[in-house]
Amino acid sequence: MTAAEIAVKIEGLLEGDGSVVIKGLSGLHDAVSGDITFLFNPRYASAVAETHASAVIVNNDWKGECRCAVIRVKNADRAFSKVASFFAPPQPDIQTGVHPTAVVAADVKLGDHVSIGPHCVLEAGVGVGDRTVFVAGCYVGHGARIGKDCKFHPLASLREGVIVGDRVIIHNGAVIGSDGFGYVNDGGKWTKIPQIGTVVIGDDVEIGANATIDRARFGATTIGNGVKIDNLVQIAHNVKVGDNTAMASQVGISGSTTIGKNVMLGGQAGLAGHLTVGDNAVVGAQGGVTKDVPPATFVSGYPAMPHDKAKKIHAHIMLLPALRERVKELEKRLAELEKDREESGVK
Amino acid sequence: MTAAEIAVKIEGLLEGDGSVVIKGLSGLHDAVSGDITFLFNPRYASAVAETHASAVIVNNDWKGECRCAVIRVKNADRAFSKVASFFAPPQPDIQTGVHPTAVVAADVKLGDHVSIGPHCVLEAGVGVGDRTVFVAGCYVGHGARIGKDCKFHPLASLREGVIVGDRVIIHNGAVIGSDGFGYVNDGGKWTKIPQIGTVVIGDDVEIGANATIDRARFGATTIGNGVKIDNLVQIAHNVKVGDNTAMASQVGISGSTTIGKNVMLGGQAGLAGHLTVGDNAVVGAQGGVTKDVPPATFVSGYPAMPHDKAKKIHAHIMLLPALRERVKELEKRLAELEKDREESGVK
Amino acid sequence: MTAAEIAVKIEGLLEGDGSVVIKGLSGLHDAVSGDITFLFNPRYASAVAETHASAVIVNNDWKGECRCAVIRVKNADRAFSKVASFFAPPQPDIQTGVHPTAVVAADVKLGDHVSIGPHCVLEAGVGVGDRTVFVAGCYVGHGARIGKDCKFHPLASLREGVIVGDRVIIHNGAVIGSDGFGYVNDGGKWTKIPQIGTVVIGDDVEIGANATIDRARFGATTIGNGVKIDNLVQIAHNVKVGDNTAMASQVGISGSTTIGKNVMLGGQAGLAGHLTVGDNAVVGAQGGVTKDVPPATFVSGYPAMPHDKAKKIHAHIMLLPALRERVKELEKRLAELEKDREESGVK
Repeated sequence: MTAAEIAVKIEGLLEGDGSVVIKGLSGLHDAVSGDITFLFNPRYASAVAETHASAVIVNNDWKGECRCAVIRVKNADRAFSKVASFFAPPQPDIQTGVHPTAVVAADVKLGDHVSIGPHCVLEAGVGVGDRTVFVAGCYVGHGARIGKDCKFHPLASLREGVIVGDRVIIHNGAVIGSDGFGYVNDGGKWTKIPQIGTVVIGDDVEIGANATIDRARFGATTIGNGVKIDNLVQIAHNVKVGDNTAMASQVGISGSTTIGKNVMLGGQAGLAGHLTVGDNAVVGAQGGVTKDVPPATFVSGYPAMPHDKAKKIHAHIMLLPALRERVKELEKRLAELEKDREESGVK
Repeated sequence: MTAAEIAVKIEGLLEGDGSVVIKGLSGLHDAVSGDITFLFNPRYASAVAETHASAVIVNNDWKGECRCAVIRVKNADRAFSKVASFFAPPQPDIQTGVHPTAVVAADVKLGDHVSIGPHCVLEAGVGVGDRTVFVAGCYVGHGARIGKDCKFHPLASLREGVIVGDRVIIHNGAVIGSDGFGYVNDGGKWTKIPQIGTVVIGDDVEIGANATIDRARFGATTIGNGVKIDNLVQIAHNVKVGDNTAMASQVGISGSTTIGKNVMLGGQAGLAGHLTVGDNAVVGAQGGVTKDVPPATFVSGYPAMPHDKAKKIHAHIMLLPALRERVKELEKRLAELEKDREESGVK
Repeated sequence: MTAAEIAVKIEGLLEGDGSVVIKGLSGLHDAVSGDITFLFNPRYASAVAETHASAVIVNNDWKGECRCAVIRVKNADRAFSKVASFFAPPQPDIQTGVHPTAVVAADVKLGDHVSIGPHCVLEAGVGVGDRTVFVAGCYVGHGARIGKDCKFHPLASLREGVIVGDRVIIHNGAVIGSDGFGYVNDGGKWTKIPQIGTVVIGDDVEIGANATIDRARFGATTIGNGVKIDNLVQIAHNVKVGDNTAMASQVGISGSTTIGKNVMLGGQAGLAGHLTVGDNAVVGAQGGVTKDVPPATFVSGYPAMPHDKAKKIHAHIMLLPALRERVKELEKRLAELEKDREESGVK
């Protein structure tokens, strides 16, 4: 595929030699001759002039120098993703049907063109929608119901009674529906509170590798439509997550906290229990949220506070040594005035 | 079951219409007609008047308004857990015996009524106590010894030589006995230190999904009786955890640290290595513990300090902008005094 | 084996009764008669006099009292590891060949003396080097290529196309090659960006239990030779990690960040995306890295700053209450001076 052909496919404006053949994709720094690359993050603007790529995709308003072909588009990031799909290695054919090593209970209801890979276990009462794929080694507990066009990567596990919507992707090792962490303390010993609820996951959700979502104490832990959950995230019992919320890796959400729609949680952020985070709110990476977050606010730090305030406080902290010097200086000057006063006998 | 019947079963005092039939459980906010709910966390007190539930369980001293039946008990949280158990979906029958797809070494010693589910692997020399259940896809390494009445959820894995007590619950994907993270640096390269110890887990322990507990460099990483460990917790080699200690999700404990009895570690707390945390201590969520914690103290923050002090310091930090203004004001006033002095020629 | 025999094997200088028979290893505190122990961490120096061990390995320059045999060596830590290897339980024999329950695609290329344990799945196009071991329940995706002398512990999973060097150890539940967390926001909804890259892992790498390493959006997430990664670490797409870098448990590295060689990342440290961490840099535990880290610098805190500065700032923070008192005192004294001035009618 030539740079010119790619420009047409992504509706871009070509500058330079469009006849160059593109053989692969790469980042600005790593690209070699024959690669196409892109500039989206302004941080890397200076790398465009240096890249060894044969073509670069940039935003329409890009100004800069470049030794290779340039394709201008509205959104270079999105256009590059489209180009990436042209070069994606062919996905392995999915074998529909049930692999002979899979253990599927007699009453499981499978939709059309379902694929149950090797060593998967589907317990009694499970229902699976059309075209859903379990790659290998997946576990689905009693009575769980899964929609259509889902993909369960190897060793994903779903506990009894969990409900999953359509077009859900669950990565390797993720656990949905483990018991919530609930005990009462009886004179020093912990007695387990039965966790008899479940987990309900909407449509178009993606859940990262080794992430964990606990079943509710009662009722359901709910994950809205379009929610994206990164690797190693923990979602405790009775949490509710609104539609299209995204959370980066290693986020932890404590029990009974409610997260609104279109919220973004930065990596390693931690949220205490029984809180409410409003729609469109953002929590910075490593933020420690200890109270409700109003809609459309950006909080960060520990304990989390509005980001502008956090930045201001941080600036003040960094100036503490200087402030202490100023106080020391004041003390010295004041002592001198006081000495004067005494000597002059004003009083 | 009617509200009146439930009141009898939980030894509560009924107020209002006891004849209403209860069909399910829910939280105060989510409840619909036919549900029973409860108030325990004072945070939700105002929600009682608004709930659509048909009955609510409250503590004896509750004062408030409510449109539905009320059941007063000593501890509403515990009573509700009991009610929850009445409504718990029937647990699937556990098939005792060894599933034909399980791979169990010839010399494995199984107690009575043990259940080894599909695709489990039990290596040579393993011993398993009566009534212990391996649901599916579990791995038990050479020579591991497991007590009675344990439950291993799918894909839990136990490495060679690990010892587990009675009534232990291990959730999906948890790993017990992986190698400790130990190397010596030989001129820039890392040489692995053999991790020849093991892990010893007491009775009545529960370990969350995808948690990891490393085997000792030598001797044993030990988890006391009644310890409760939430999802994605990391416990490094040679750590010792005392009886009835509880740790919330994503806690990380570094090597050779000793945790006392009845300790509580908040979510995402991190503990450095070779420390001692005394009995009954509490570490706040996200706390970073860098030195020993005396018994019965509550520490928080980074680096962790006594919580009262942390709160005081935090309050001072939040007042920093005001403090700086006060210093600025002092400087102005002092400069004026100095100018006066000069002008007046006092000296 | 006697203490004297051990002293010879580790080239140490024996003091005291070398005829005592050593039956096991232990820490200074836990040791009983018949054990050998060691002192390396000065923190434990006082425990030597109290230990019940029959022999203790110390550094040559050790000064202290001890009731048992003493062996002086150049590096007590390393010598003890060597001794540990004498007492290591014999490793179970590894069965070479393919277990009958394993599912291995017809075109998989296996080297000599490979061991594919029960319930492993190797998809089409996989290549495996000599003597590599898959213990049980491991998954290897289409076209993945694995070097020789590797060990995959149970339930480790490797996604399609991932490349692994020689002598790599991957612990239970680790996931290599899950999709990177990449989406574009289309009017509130998230559209998945195809993650068509892969992961390339060098030689002599060790990856901890339940750790996750995402495949690149394009190109490769790369892990250099000799890198050591602890449990529950998250490495996002397109991250590059230099040779011999070590990262402790629960570290999180965001997308496209480049880590140099011989870097050390403390437990729970978090790194933002698109950063560069120079060779030989150190990030303290729980540090939050938000900008580039120059080579050979030690940063800590949130946001991470040079450790010396962080310590200084922390000291200032702890003195804030005192500073505020000083300002209060200044205000009082200044007010008095001002009052004097007014009363004396100087102006």
